[in-house]
Amino acid sequence: MNNYKPYAIGLDIGGTNITGAVIDKMGEILEKISIDTNPDTNPDEVLERIYKMMNELLDKSNVQIDDVAGIGVATAGIIDSKEKVIIFANNLGWRNVPVGRLIGDRFGLPVKLSNDANAAAIAEWIWGAGKGCQDMIYITVSTGIGSGIISNGRMVTGSGDSGGEFGHISINPYGPRCSCGNSGCIERYASGTAIAEWVRSELKTNPQRKTVFGYEKESLITSEKAWKAAEQGDELALKAFSEAGFYLGIGITNLINLFNPEVIILGGGVMKAHRFILPKINETINKRGIPALTKRAQLSISFLEQEAGVLGGAGLIFLDHQSLSNYPSYI
Amino acid sequence: MNNYKPYAIGLDIGGTNITGAVIDKMGEILEKISIDTNPDTNPDEVLERIYKMMNELLDKSNVQIDDVAGIGVATAGIIDSKEKVIIFANNLGWRNVPVGRLIGDRFGLPVKLSNDANAAAIAEWIWGAGKGCQDMIYITVSTGIGSGIISNGRMVTGSGDSGGEFGHISINPYGPRCSCGNSGCIERYASGTAIAEWVRSELKTNPQRKTVFGYEKESLITSEKAWKAAEQGDELALKAFSEAGFYLGIGITNLINLFNPEVIILGGGVMKAHRFILPKINETINKRGIPALTKRAQLSISFLEQEAGVLGGAGLIFLDHQSLSNYPSYI
Repeated sequence: MNNYKPYAIGLDIGGTNITGAVIDKMGEILEKISIDTNPDTNPDEVLERIYKMMNELLDKSNVQIDDVAGIGVATAGIIDSKEKVIIFANNLGWRNVPVGRLIGDRFGLPVKLSNDANAAAIAEWIWGAGKGCQDMIYITVSTGIGSGIISNGRMVTGSGDSGGEFGHISINPYGPRCSCGNSGCIERYASGTAIAEWVRSELKTNPQRKTVFGYEKESLITSEKAWKAAEQGDELALKAFSEAGFYLGIGITNLINLFNPEVIILGGGVMKAHRFILPKINETINKRGIPALTKRAQLSISFLEQEAGVLGGAGLIFLDHQSLSNYPSYI
Repeated sequence: MNNYKPYAIGLDIGGTNITGAVIDKMGEILEKISIDTNPDTNPDEVLERIYKMMNELLDKSNVQIDDVAGIGVATAGIIDSKEKVIIFANNLGWRNVPVGRLIGDRFGLPVKLSNDANAAAIAEWIWGAGKGCQDMIYITVSTGIGSGIISNGRMVTGSGDSGGEFGHISINPYGPRCSCGNSGCIERYASGTAIAEWVRSELKTNPQRKTVFGYEKESLITSEKAWKAAEQGDELALKAFSEAGFYLGIGITNLINLFNPEVIILGGGVMKAHRFILPKINETINKRGIPALTKRAQLSISFLEQEAGVLGGAGLIFLDHQSLSNYPSYI
């Protein structure tokens, strides 16, 4: 019997796009397709479009289904990775969708399910900035803040698949209220939402503030706009990213003290502005961390950013113990 | 060949006492001996006394050395568990002492080395309040605050054996300075030292404060005294423990969000006052935590307190994979 299955299909199900890719064990993407999610339609309709996309992927890449080891799905929201059910995904409007069973039955393949931050961590771990590490942390700074943590060569999932909520670490019990019920969460200081809020509030208290970038309409200020303003040297925007970097530095120092990692990888949309954020993160870690721990911890930008979701999905399949024991030389 | 070795020797090397015990796989202590550490003498002299104690333990328990699977050492300070070296133990005054090699050579047995918080976590995990869990956190609240974390059925040690520094999680970047170089560490709010400091500072600002307990000499106030005062209903002492409980609650909520554990076990000298601390911890977690995570996380008092060090040492030996595969039915 030939168990050699050199490919996996990675699926990244987001609120805006769904991306699928056929990926080999070296992390090479043979073929990739993105479709609109249209989350307003029901899950069955979305899944039918996913099946169609997957067949197209197999056709285009000229890969036989018998050569596919499995399908790995990365998705936002609350999931049950054992039962492979999306419990609740706010941006999809999905509740209790057993994607593992549905997709698995359709293609006759094993399915793995992971949240998107954990999937991105897996991808960086196998093929990206965390390659060869036993202890690494991936942090995504976007609208919110999430993380995927590898400790002793294993994903920290926790008892209910809900570990790694770095965005909801409180660094000030008397800080601003967070939607999670806590106060002073990192997400309230350093997410894209928080950065935009900070700029808005500074403009409100200093309406005369001169900027090279036009902040004409407060409600339209986003962290993306602040990034572009920072690129033009706008001081307010530069200060906004430095503030975010300070609080990320506080939070990352906490993670270093808990996990003693070799590398911390930063991804997510806000990290496009990494050159305005990283210096302050580094400064804060160096000033506040325990030297024996911080000297081991390397800060890095995500290597795989746009493809981290689909690659992480494929990684889930390749990391499966049975696959690993069949092809030990590949990873 | 008979590989059946039903016993281990646990050693708990502290700054005041060294305790050794012969322990079986059910966690039963057959014999236990404590000696003074006398840290002023050199390591060789202390080790000679340890060897003598271990021979005495074997004699008294009537256990043959051939029936001992190994020696597990729990110690304070910075260690290298792979090389089995105590890198630096402040309370012992030891630097770079290769206890693993020295003790191992003397008895011809495998040696394992762990810091004391991790050893206590192992003990609670195998035989105590964390029995049967895959995800648990042990926290020791004493002069300082430490922790040992089990995630996915494995100890979180980190890349340099220095993970689990819960005491040095900052929950306020602008809080009081900590000896670690950071500000606002949990240890500065909720350790025995911090509790005593809080009482002293309250008395300084309110010298007229009536208490049932005599706080005559400020410099002599300890968390132990505050505990006894709380037992007598002293309001200041009760407030001190409630404050500590609040900050522990903030820190534990952070841990729950990161590790999604099934149980959090609290030990250490300060937890003698648990009935004055736990209610506030619980209240804070319930108010601030994410319900899906907090509902899974049970708070518990340490089951093994006094013996956690030696039991953890023995646990390190029994958890060794080779031992486990020989006696799978025991643990």
